[in-house]
Amino acid sequence: MSDWPKWLPIRHDLRELSPYGAPQLDVPTRLNTNENPYSLNESLVTDISESVRAIAKDLNRYPDRDALALRAALADYLQSSSGVAISSQKTWAANGSNEVIQQILQAFGGHEHAAIGFTPSYSMHALIARTTGTNWIDGHRDSDFTLNAASAISQIKDSRPQIIFITSPNNPTGTSVSIETKRAILETASELGALVVVDEAYAEFARTRTDSALHLLGEFPNVLVTRTMSKAFAMAGTRLGYLVAEPAVIDALMIVRLPYHLSAVTQTVALAALRHAGELLETIEAIKVQRDRITAELTRMGFNPIPSDANFVLFGPFTDSKVAWKALLEHGVLIRDVGLPGFLRVTAGTATETTAFLEAIEEIRQETR
Amino acid sequence: MSDWPKWLPIRHDLRELSPYGAPQLDVPTRLNTNENPYSLNESLVTDISESVRAIAKDLNRYPDRDALALRAALADYLQSSSGVAISSQKTWAANGSNEVIQQILQAFGGHEHAAIGFTPSYSMHALIARTTGTNWIDGHRDSDFTLNAASAISQIKDSRPQIIFITSPNNPTGTSVSIETKRAILETASELGALVVVDEAYAEFARTRTDSALHLLGEFPNVLVTRTMSKAFAMAGTRLGYLVAEPAVIDALMIVRLPYHLSAVTQTVALAALRHAGELLETIEAIKVQRDRITAELTRMGFNPIPSDANFVLFGPFTDSKVAWKALLEHGVLIRDVGLPGFLRVTAGTATETTAFLEAIEEIRQETR
Repeated sequence: MSDWPKWLPIRHDLRELSPYGAPQLDVPTRLNTNENPYSLNESLVTDISESVRAIAKDLNRYPDRDALALRAALADYLQSSSGVAISSQKTWAANGSNEVIQQILQAFGGHEHAAIGFTPSYSMHALIARTTGTNWIDGHRDSDFTLNAASAISQIKDSRPQIIFITSPNNPTGTSVSIETKRAILETASELGALVVVDEAYAEFARTRTDSALHLLGEFPNVLVTRTMSKAFAMAGTRLGYLVAEPAVIDALMIVRLPYHLSAVTQTVALAALRHAGELLETIEAIKVQRDRITAELTRMGFNPIPSDANFVLFGPFTDSKVAWKALLEHGVLIRDVGLPGFLRVTAGTATETTAFLEAIEEIRQETR
Repeated sequence: MSDWPKWLPIRHDLRELSPYGAPQLDVPTRLNTNENPYSLNESLVTDISESVRAIAKDLNRYPDRDALALRAALADYLQSSSGVAISSQKTWAANGSNEVIQQILQAFGGHEHAAIGFTPSYSMHALIARTTGTNWIDGHRDSDFTLNAASAISQIKDSRPQIIFITSPNNPTGTSVSIETKRAILETASELGALVVVDEAYAEFARTRTDSALHLLGEFPNVLVTRTMSKAFAMAGTRLGYLVAEPAVIDALMIVRLPYHLSAVTQTVALAALRHAGELLETIEAIKVQRDRITAELTRMGFNPIPSDANFVLFGPFTDSKVAWKALLEHGVLIRDVGLPGFLRVTAGTATETTAFLEAIEEIRQETR
């Protein structure tokens, strides 16, 4: 925007920005925001409703400011799913992993510090860097959207950031960063006094789960791993992101976090979901089947899908991705134009939703390629 | 803190800070955080539980990013309680008024801008200014904790801030700023291109409700009024703060807000509370009775309570407020040491809680004065 009223003292470096966000359109098949397509089962719905009832009477009181019970449950989940020893003192939770990222940039960024990410990647890293006044360095990936250690290290040494973002599996490309590459980047970061934030929002969908940066926690104090309950846990509406890091990192976040940032209701609903982790995570295999089906079918149609470790697939080529996006929308299928010329991103849905997408893309592919 | 590990790139200007927050102690009578002492009634508990049940199935989907239904309900409440015409386009909501304040400082602050507050006042204004990198100007009140227009205007003209905080009723003093003083400050702010944020967290407890800055909305585009559901609405555990301002202000906040910052559960619970506004706000009169009882009784005991328009009373004098605070704690009554030498702050509780406080303070007053 640039037509701000004269009386409004909006920050100069924000004047040209517009609010982030995918269009919220009411169409039959929504495969645009990487949501888990499976709605919650009756047993979890009942648990959530009854758990909220049990705490609702006392909502006149502030919540547990440090969310101790929730952080212990998150530590248990991570430990049992990864085999890595994780104590609740090493976990942290906030309203979505966006808020965790904001707290990291508030504590360790600011206008005297810099952060780097390797694009195309999750665009909120750069946006939150900007709103927190942190200098942003737009690093780059290889042309196949992978990240190799030599290139990353060279870019880091050139720019000397305090914060290094690695998204793995990466959004919007679906590509993972191997544990060897992450280790090499962490060695460089340690020499330079930088933190490495590994954004693992899609970790549960990866084909090789042992690539998670959780396995590097014992080796490097400066690794921060962010996760979310929005995707694998099917909890996008609850807004619960979390972090694993050294207690000293969490001490620093406690300086910048807003007091009582996590409501009693959010803590309660997230705890209920963690009690039902088994059922919720059962959806992952079904989603991976649809993801791989999308990749196979798009390949058969002559598209070039990027190999994905997430719950979505980036694919092309299109001469004009905006035209293709709109043609799909006219067929009742909403996917995402991530601003990458020639590409579009589709979320793996239920079998039915995925079929609707595949039929629509097959119909429009002649006219839009 | 100052013993941060060497490898941690914490911002230099945050190194000496410690996390904000009142001690979370388990004592019989907690009158330290200005909570509403009345737990929710069964009818509201049932409405909350059933409303959450109704949306829980779809928690796999992201919430309404712009919280349109909730903002409309907040506009309705404000309009009916103040008589001022307020559209939903002029309202905004976030996770507590702290998050609203953070968004304001992110959009209009930053290291090239400055904010002023008149202390002693709500300490989060200065703290959030600091974490958002905004230059903070520590303005001052008169010795009786009131704010007079000439002094405020002179301080504003000297420091030329972009953001002016006025807390009314003020925390921790309970004192209000008259509408004439607010109008005079707004006239100066308009000349200087500054915004005036009137923090009205305790507005519903004021003796003169027509002093609300809501009545200045039509006169000045640069007035922002923040409110909360934590106090009068007895919803501290829900974390719902809100704002009334010109749509252009809200457009700017939408650039810095985290996408989907307000969970579907929070929106649902807040909407349920607004449906029960009548019952919830009935607690206000009872709380005001206890507040005025505290003032009268403390005066009788020889203390000097500051006249309060909020749900708490600041009082003194103490030769050592820390000693008095601890003596009360030993009597099972937790109140707040707000860091103002010679003073302590007590929240008006139920009649029983207030009695417990008054009995304890009478017992200890000889030893601690």
